[in-house]
Amino acid sequence: MDFPVPLHVHDESFCVRAYESGVSNQVTLPALCNYLQEAAGNHARALGLGIHELQDAGFTWMLARLHLAIHRYAAWRETVHLRTWPAGVRGRLTALRDFRMTDDAGETVLLGVSEWLYVEAAAQRIVRLPQAFAALAPAGTPQVPLPETPAKLPAVTAPEWSAAITVRHSDHDFNNHVNNAHYVAWTLECLPDAWLGRRRAREIDIAFRAAAHWGDTVTAEAAHDAGDADTLLHRIRRDSDGALLAQARTVWSEPS
Amino acid sequence: MDFPVPLHVHDESFCVRAYESGVSNQVTLPALCNYLQEAAGNHARALGLGIHELQDAGFTWMLARLHLAIHRYAAWRETVHLRTWPAGVRGRLTALRDFRMTDDAGETVLLGVSEWLYVEAAAQRIVRLPQAFAALAPAGTPQVPLPETPAKLPAVTAPEWSAAITVRHSDHDFNNHVNNAHYVAWTLECLPDAWLGRRRAREIDIAFRAAAHWGDTVTAEAAHDAGDADTLLHRIRRDSDGALLAQARTVWSEPS
Repeated sequence: MDFPVPLHVHDESFCVRAYESGVSNQVTLPALCNYLQEAAGNHARALGLGIHELQDAGFTWMLARLHLAIHRYAAWRETVHLRTWPAGVRGRLTALRDFRMTDDAGETVLLGVSEWLYVEAAAQRIVRLPQAFAALAPAGTPQVPLPETPAKLPAVTAPEWSAAITVRHSDHDFNNHVNNAHYVAWTLECLPDAWLGRRRAREIDIAFRAAAHWGDTVTAEAAHDAGDADTLLHRIRRDSDGALLAQARTVWSEPS
Repeated sequence: MDFPVPLHVHDESFCVRAYESGVSNQVTLPALCNYLQEAAGNHARALGLGIHELQDAGFTWMLARLHLAIHRYAAWRETVHLRTWPAGVRGRLTALRDFRMTDDAGETVLLGVSEWLYVEAAAQRIVRLPQAFAALAPAGTPQVPLPETPAKLPAVTAPEWSAAITVRHSDHDFNNHVNNAHYVAWTLECLPDAWLGRRRAREIDIAFRAAAHWGDTVTAEAAHDAGDADTLLHRIRRDSDGALLAQARTVWSEPS
């Protein structure tokens, strides 16, 4: 992998398990998100910025956006190697963390950029990043070669597909929040078999806007992006108040 | 671990991941079921009896029952060591597979017994076990020290708690079946926070009776077992035809 090494990196390998595999015997997109979350959490902890360390001080991390390009879906039982690192800050509020996943041959199978906000837990208020954070990724820190995404995702105006989802206890993680990988799963939930059976998502860009909780019913909707047969737009809204919980854009292709 | 070694064993270790941990920062019961399923699948494959090998011949395995005693829930980031082995057959139809999970100190944290049926895939018909199967666990093969369970689980007659669940695409595994760990999660889904907040399941005995599929709505119900404040009975039924999908019995205690 001909790629400069950032100042702080965390490497972790994952062997794709049966229950993380989809019908094609390949790792599912939500399972990939779980791997990313696991490695990011372990790295933050090693840096003294883990969720439990922050909680003790009254703060927490919130994942605001995740942009992934999936070059190839690893097969069941295949081991993938994930490297993650703080990639810088954007303004005073957004910390960037990048991901690069490779296979045993060193070929890239996934690139990812994530955006994190620093939140005062009691007030649920976004606060300025601690100064120390910028120092983790000084100028010149490498970033994964993913195209910039627009600050705002396009809105879904005329949904073509829709699915109702009741939030389960088991969708919650140890923070008692719905795990981000579940929003990714919900995003795909409304797509018909005829779509999913012939295509794989090769890109997802998802913005997390508000949290769902146990007992909420939410509606996941999707539609084609105007003028692009391979691109879909998604939104997840809470039924009770119409609150927008997540927006996404996915790009699909037939498996090669 | 002072325990005789069976003829065929498979050992696999799992480090409890963040997304497999519940609010108490301990591994969830469904995550434990995933570990068991993973190790059983890997062992069956190593023995030439894996799900893909069987599918090629027109057969598949069906998990019919799972009985677990959880001595202690491992913490997030803790590594657990799982040993599994074919433990014998019961009659002509039921293959037994046992599990013992230990911690780094060698202490038992979980014991399990599972019952598997051999199914002719096209006809969805249970068939006699291949002769070779009994030979995997000759007379004298060790079995985990779990008390025998009654052949039939007691029925839920007057449900106290109930939850409606819509089966998701993402509940399915690579066989396009709902993964058994999801039935375990659904079993717990109807229990109120006041129950779950103060207790952990230290035993589960679950019988899988029929399969749910995407789009089904199911109802999970639970009630106290007569005369035992710590024991609950559960059932999961499909709403459209009332079919019984799973029955379970759970025993609960306050964390020590």
